Amino acid sequence: MPRVAVDVLLKREILDPQGRAVEEALPGLGYEGVHEVRVGKHLELVVEAEGEELAARVDAMCQGFLTNPVIESYRWRVIDESERADA
Amino acid sequence: MPRVAVDVLLKREILDPQGRAVEEALPGLGYEGVHEVRVGKHLELVVEAEGEELAARVDAMCQGFLTNPVIESYRWRVIDESERADA
Repeated sequence: MPRVAVDVLLKREILDPQGRAVEEALPGLGYEGVHEVRVGKHLELVVEAEGEELAARVDAMCQGFLTNPVIESYRWRVIDESERADA
Repeated sequence: MPRVAVDVLLKREILDPQGRAVEEALPGLGYEGVHEVRVGKHLELVVEAEGEELAARVDAMCQGFLTNPVIESYRWRVIDESERADA
């Protein structure tokens, strides 16, 4: 069964206070030269579906529950075992 | 300058209550057959560095500030404009 990674960010035109806070904190911590920081959600999940059915179900979940489509954008991809963020 | 996407999840052996809550809510909302839900953070940022220097700086930021390495794992990759979650 495919493992899906979903990334969610606030839309570009929406202010992201958390991203702003991270960006402003970095130089003081010694991390210079980092810009355009945006902070959002990352989900990984296993879905019992393949191909077009998988795409339809992931998009339905993202639009209907996992994101707020008014203010957030998302992108998803199928990942293998080695691409898990907790691998 | 490269744009970097960082995905952060709790380590596998750490209970993820948010992931559990999402997983348990999905069937009641009509989304059956979804398992192993984990919820974490997704960051996108632009870094003034390339190659090995980029890798060293991103890893230092992740380990020193953006994640809690005791309980969280992360993975990062360079993305292009079309791969932005808010593209």
